[in-house]
Amino acid sequence: MKKPLRIGLIGYGFMGRTHSNAFRKVSNFFDLDYEPVLQAICARDEAKAKAFADKWGWQSVESDWRKLVDRDDIDLIDIGSPNNTHAEIALAAAKAGKMILCEKPLSMDAAEGLKMAKAVEKAGVPNMVWYNYRRVPAVTLAKQLIDEGRLGKIFHYRAKFLQDWTISKDLPQGGTALWRLDVKVAGSGVTGDLLAHCIDTAIWLNGGFADVTAVTETFIKERKHTLTGKVEKVGIDDACSFLSHFKNGSLGNFESTRYARGHKALYTFEINGENGSLFWDLHDLHRLQVFDYKDDKLIRGWKSVHVTDSEHPYMKNWWVPGLQIGYEHTFVHQVADFIQGLQDGKPVAPTFRDALETQYVCDAVLKSGRSGKWEKVGGRKG
Amino acid sequence: MKKPLRIGLIGYGFMGRTHSNAFRKVSNFFDLDYEPVLQAICARDEAKAKAFADKWGWQSVESDWRKLVDRDDIDLIDIGSPNNTHAEIALAAAKAGKMILCEKPLSMDAAEGLKMAKAVEKAGVPNMVWYNYRRVPAVTLAKQLIDEGRLGKIFHYRAKFLQDWTISKDLPQGGTALWRLDVKVAGSGVTGDLLAHCIDTAIWLNGGFADVTAVTETFIKERKHTLTGKVEKVGIDDACSFLSHFKNGSLGNFESTRYARGHKALYTFEINGENGSLFWDLHDLHRLQVFDYKDDKLIRGWKSVHVTDSEHPYMKNWWVPGLQIGYEHTFVHQVADFIQGLQDGKPVAPTFRDALETQYVCDAVLKSGRSGKWEKVGGRKG
Amino acid sequence: MKKPLRIGLIGYGFMGRTHSNAFRKVSNFFDLDYEPVLQAICARDEAKAKAFADKWGWQSVESDWRKLVDRDDIDLIDIGSPNNTHAEIALAAAKAGKMILCEKPLSMDAAEGLKMAKAVEKAGVPNMVWYNYRRVPAVTLAKQLIDEGRLGKIFHYRAKFLQDWTISKDLPQGGTALWRLDVKVAGSGVTGDLLAHCIDTAIWLNGGFADVTAVTETFIKERKHTLTGKVEKVGIDDACSFLSHFKNGSLGNFESTRYARGHKALYTFEINGENGSLFWDLHDLHRLQVFDYKDDKLIRGWKSVHVTDSEHPYMKNWWVPGLQIGYEHTFVHQVADFIQGLQDGKPVAPTFRDALETQYVCDAVLKSGRSGKWEKVGGRKG
Amino acid sequence: MKKPLRIGLIGYGFMGRTHSNAFRKVSNFFDLDYEPVLQAICARDEAKAKAFADKWGWQSVESDWRKLVDRDDIDLIDIGSPNNTHAEIALAAAKAGKMILCEKPLSMDAAEGLKMAKAVEKAGVPNMVWYNYRRVPAVTLAKQLIDEGRLGKIFHYRAKFLQDWTISKDLPQGGTALWRLDVKVAGSGVTGDLLAHCIDTAIWLNGGFADVTAVTETFIKERKHTLTGKVEKVGIDDACSFLSHFKNGSLGNFESTRYARGHKALYTFEINGENGSLFWDLHDLHRLQVFDYKDDKLIRGWKSVHVTDSEHPYMKNWWVPGLQIGYEHTFVHQVADFIQGLQDGKPVAPTFRDALETQYVCDAVLKSGRSGKWEKVGGRKG
Repeated sequence: MKKPLRIGLIGYGFMGRTHSNAFRKVSNFFDLDYEPVLQAICARDEAKAKAFADKWGWQSVESDWRKLVDRDDIDLIDIGSPNNTHAEIALAAAKAGKMILCEKPLSMDAAEGLKMAKAVEKAGVPNMVWYNYRRVPAVTLAKQLIDEGRLGKIFHYRAKFLQDWTISKDLPQGGTALWRLDVKVAGSGVTGDLLAHCIDTAIWLNGGFADVTAVTETFIKERKHTLTGKVEKVGIDDACSFLSHFKNGSLGNFESTRYARGHKALYTFEINGENGSLFWDLHDLHRLQVFDYKDDKLIRGWKSVHVTDSEHPYMKNWWVPGLQIGYEHTFVHQVADFIQGLQDGKPVAPTFRDALETQYVCDAVLKSGRSGKWEKVGGRKG
Repeated sequence: MKKPLRIGLIGYGFMGRTHSNAFRKVSNFFDLDYEPVLQAICARDEAKAKAFADKWGWQSVESDWRKLVDRDDIDLIDIGSPNNTHAEIALAAAKAGKMILCEKPLSMDAAEGLKMAKAVEKAGVPNMVWYNYRRVPAVTLAKQLIDEGRLGKIFHYRAKFLQDWTISKDLPQGGTALWRLDVKVAGSGVTGDLLAHCIDTAIWLNGGFADVTAVTETFIKERKHTLTGKVEKVGIDDACSFLSHFKNGSLGNFESTRYARGHKALYTFEINGENGSLFWDLHDLHRLQVFDYKDDKLIRGWKSVHVTDSEHPYMKNWWVPGLQIGYEHTFVHQVADFIQGLQDGKPVAPTFRDALETQYVCDAVLKSGRSGKWEKVGGRKG
Repeated sequence: MKKPLRIGLIGYGFMGRTHSNAFRKVSNFFDLDYEPVLQAICARDEAKAKAFADKWGWQSVESDWRKLVDRDDIDLIDIGSPNNTHAEIALAAAKAGKMILCEKPLSMDAAEGLKMAKAVEKAGVPNMVWYNYRRVPAVTLAKQLIDEGRLGKIFHYRAKFLQDWTISKDLPQGGTALWRLDVKVAGSGVTGDLLAHCIDTAIWLNGGFADVTAVTETFIKERKHTLTGKVEKVGIDDACSFLSHFKNGSLGNFESTRYARGHKALYTFEINGENGSLFWDLHDLHRLQVFDYKDDKLIRGWKSVHVTDSEHPYMKNWWVPGLQIGYEHTFVHQVADFIQGLQDGKPVAPTFRDALETQYVCDAVLKSGRSGKWEKVGGRKG
Repeated sequence: MKKPLRIGLIGYGFMGRTHSNAFRKVSNFFDLDYEPVLQAICARDEAKAKAFADKWGWQSVESDWRKLVDRDDIDLIDIGSPNNTHAEIALAAAKAGKMILCEKPLSMDAAEGLKMAKAVEKAGVPNMVWYNYRRVPAVTLAKQLIDEGRLGKIFHYRAKFLQDWTISKDLPQGGTALWRLDVKVAGSGVTGDLLAHCIDTAIWLNGGFADVTAVTETFIKERKHTLTGKVEKVGIDDACSFLSHFKNGSLGNFESTRYARGHKALYTFEINGENGSLFWDLHDLHRLQVFDYKDDKLIRGWKSVHVTDSEHPYMKNWWVPGLQIGYEHTFVHQVADFIQGLQDGKPVAPTFRDALETQYVCDAVLKSGRSGKWEKVGGRKG
């Protein structure tokens, strides 16, 4: 008999859907001791929350997150609301002794994130941040190959996350749909939204950052604000590129923008080591490109690995070789791993503390964007 | 308030899982009047059926499909058991007035399939066959583009379905896991298993077949049988290629094998018309390759369309542009369409009658493989 | 000091250019004992031949090929004129004791080709047919890998050659530019023009054909003839597909057409063996796709080998790794190998006798296209 | 009757071969009034120069470039020797009134390059630098599309040039073969060798640079010197990345390295504009990837344009659609254009003055690599 893991989810947007789906599906595909129970959904707009609950099977609805946090029949608070709400909710939930899952980025900045990390650690509650791309099977495979030492000494890491959905100057900022364009709610633009993903993966695969130099740009300076109805200054970064030194001596090159016509969500990374290289692309997320220098020279080339075999991470739980899974499955994997962590009594990465590292890099990137100088990256030593 | 659609599923194998998942997910992503209820799962091995029921939320278990068919609290029988069981179950379910979903191929041959089609038509029950690849968004988009007349007169259709999982001569035949290698259970080898998919899509996109000439091959002549423990003759076709004339005057070229090293489930098709061409590949199922002759000649080329936008078939129900869905979603789409058909009082393709057409082609292909001659294809006129 | 190899070329069309270029370039890139001398160009239109000679450095001009064949200062006759002229010229040249290079296909049919092969063998003159694609470095590499036994037992060979340049019904047939559409001059359509390439490569890589079954089609039945000015019946095959058994027990699937919208010259082949597979594509001719089953399963995948390293066939004679060569270089390689053969006193494949094998397959294919039956392939035994 | 253009080439290395080939081939493929005559090859090692002359048809040999420059029977001096020799030779050749072609990069730095530009302008002699990648047909097509305004306002330009040939620490520096690793001869590492190409193309396609911030790295600090036999400090940059503002307000991101395992000569660029984007890759140089936002949304995607049609730049001079040319042809095109410029009395880009702009960017990049600050780029205004 499975133990219930009673979830209270805050937010019914895009991430509310991906999380709900993950909670509902995980037990069909993974053998675990805990069964997620969709206990309560919380959102300010009660009617919309109710409709969402009906669609996804949430058993109750709250319109005030404080009430949700106070409920005794909730084991875990899942924060799926905009960035500027993460800290307050997390601090309260930690105080209430709840386990916490938090959408990325962890916080508006590292200072806020540090408080959150300390709070969950003080409370001793399991916690995790939804940097879901770590659990694309091809990305997890990349981690495995690197950990096995197959690449040797690393020279280069490069990543980009290119989109094109904000090119029109007629697009407003703010409100429920477009809070990612409102700096007060989002904290930053592509840096916190997109580069945060790139940075999280990079730290996981290649270790910490030493320093960065960045350029940020806001191509469209003013947009109408959905809530005020007025044309207001745009405070976010539309595009951001940065160079870096990693602590292991390798060089980093990162770029993100919402003005790269033709790219919807082109998150790619490549890592070059002495003995091999890896490349991955979110637009074909089920493939990992692998170059293995130890291959016979005559037929050495980039291998397109279709990551759907039972030997590949997570894949024995799905279908048969050749049949690909997609984006939503990364969230299922993350829930499965989190529950496994509960069973094993071990924290599951990325914890708040892990995700805080990304905040330090984002802070340094944004600071460099303003200063025009190389900036040191704070956070963990070594 | 949604109306329940009470399902009785027969079979807990690979297809049992894909169907269960589809029934469980459809309401989270599609707004429909009916809600599938996982009423009963049926399989001969009751313990395994029970474990499957626990995992997927089936509310009861049967070990005799006749009892399932007789139950009053079941609206729909879903046949997910091996090919040689389809007809008997379908005939009984039709007689019992149940709606019927049936895994592909419809039947062991066209004669059997014809009885099944007549039975459901006589009973007047909604019926459908799980040729799921029609509902890959990229494939549905292909259908839409062809129906809009964008390709003009068609000259060529080619498809192949290449696998490599039976190359080892140590692989046995028969039994639960390997019934696809046992001709008595499967009816044929790659023709009914793989080419049936290619043929179904081809008929849908390009209309009926006039005649075919085929070659079949069994590379490994004898394999140990799992059930008897003895080395027995292999009766299935390991590989099959055929040429065809379509009724619209275009030429077809089809190939399938389980001996194409390096291909897991490489189902591809291409259609060439006067004004354009389309290409699709199951290994990257979220893309459609489109050549549009009307494009500016200077920059004419094959377009790689990442079929993840809200304008694309089914995709507004999922995530955001650039984020791909996978294999399992095709079954969700099929359930959604089937329910929509119930609401509209319209049959949803492919019905048993539609799927029967594929059986006629398979019969002609296998016959030609034996005769070495061009064989006419039976079935619908015109 | 290099020895002169005095060439007399017949034909100044497309192939006249590729051959001239090869003769001019070979000594710049290969160290050989013979230096081709562009002694004479021959064509019926003397003015055009003169212009061609000026452009390419041919030292003299003839308008009657018989005079060319009779000249004492010519060592080698290179036949670059249309198919229906090959035999007569070759027989005369052999009689005159000239070395002979002949454009593909060797002849109008196997009977004619057999006479040619016998003639050169009787005369004892070095001879070769311009099946240039054997000498694309990636294709030569494929041959090398197969000869090393890397693929193991072969199960499948498939090839296609797709073009789209004759779709318009307004295109005339015949004359200098469009003789390939005139069956009296070309002998056949895509079979002799395109499939002949596919067949030659297949025989080279996978051995001889046992039998074939084919379909041929002429989509546009009548076209204006350039020479007569009248609308005449089209005698060539616009499209041809065939299935085959190879003598080694593997299955073949071949297709060619000039009605595949979007493809300019898409010659592709793939060979599947027990231990690996190879794929090549003329549109990216500098790459060979290799699947090696012996690779570590975790990172097994198709390798895209960029065939530009000094270890790769012919490539040490060109530039540096990563810098690709193109179509014309295949002819240079063929001249280099032919000259090497002269130095070594060995025939260089494909000789007339080798190319005759392709004629037997073409004959069987065209015969099957008419008979609708499987047809045995003549030629060499074993 | 064609006019002779008598060439004196200095250097018989890699670039000596590409230039020789271009001079020899250009008249076979382009109709021009001038015919290059391979008058003299000059190199210090007379025996090697003689062998080179024999192989390529150079009519005489010089071992002192000053003598070559003084010869009356030379119209054009082509400088193909290492970077540190360019300036002295060019200044002398200009003084002698010779036309001058110079290998890239123009000079060791902008100061030197400025003198060279002034010298050729003062002398009034036609001059050009061999930034050959401008004349890859796909790259020239990109220029054409941009000039037609198809991309609209530009937001981003990114380029990289990745190689992997210097990863081994056992590779020495200096000498004839490895002068590119010797800072005294090369001036810099990847910046002058590889980024110079990226920068030249970028300026051509996207206009001038405003400022840059860079990181440079020398992964292997010491290497044995071929000439001295001693282990010496490595003075070149093994890797260099930089960010930039273009004068048109777009952002640039550039990276180059010789430590990207798996890449031989992966020069790629991408440009993103309001209405479209373009991508090109040297490893498949015959293709241009085009995204056209004005395409029908349903089938919008990146088009893979196989740049081999007669409508495409330079391609009507070569073969037929679908048959690709390669690396060496870029040099042929450059000679053809240079001669056309002579006929038209117009300078042909990139002139020394044009190439000087790249030197200013390289200087700023290297300076920023040392200073850690954003550095303004000198050169032309506006």
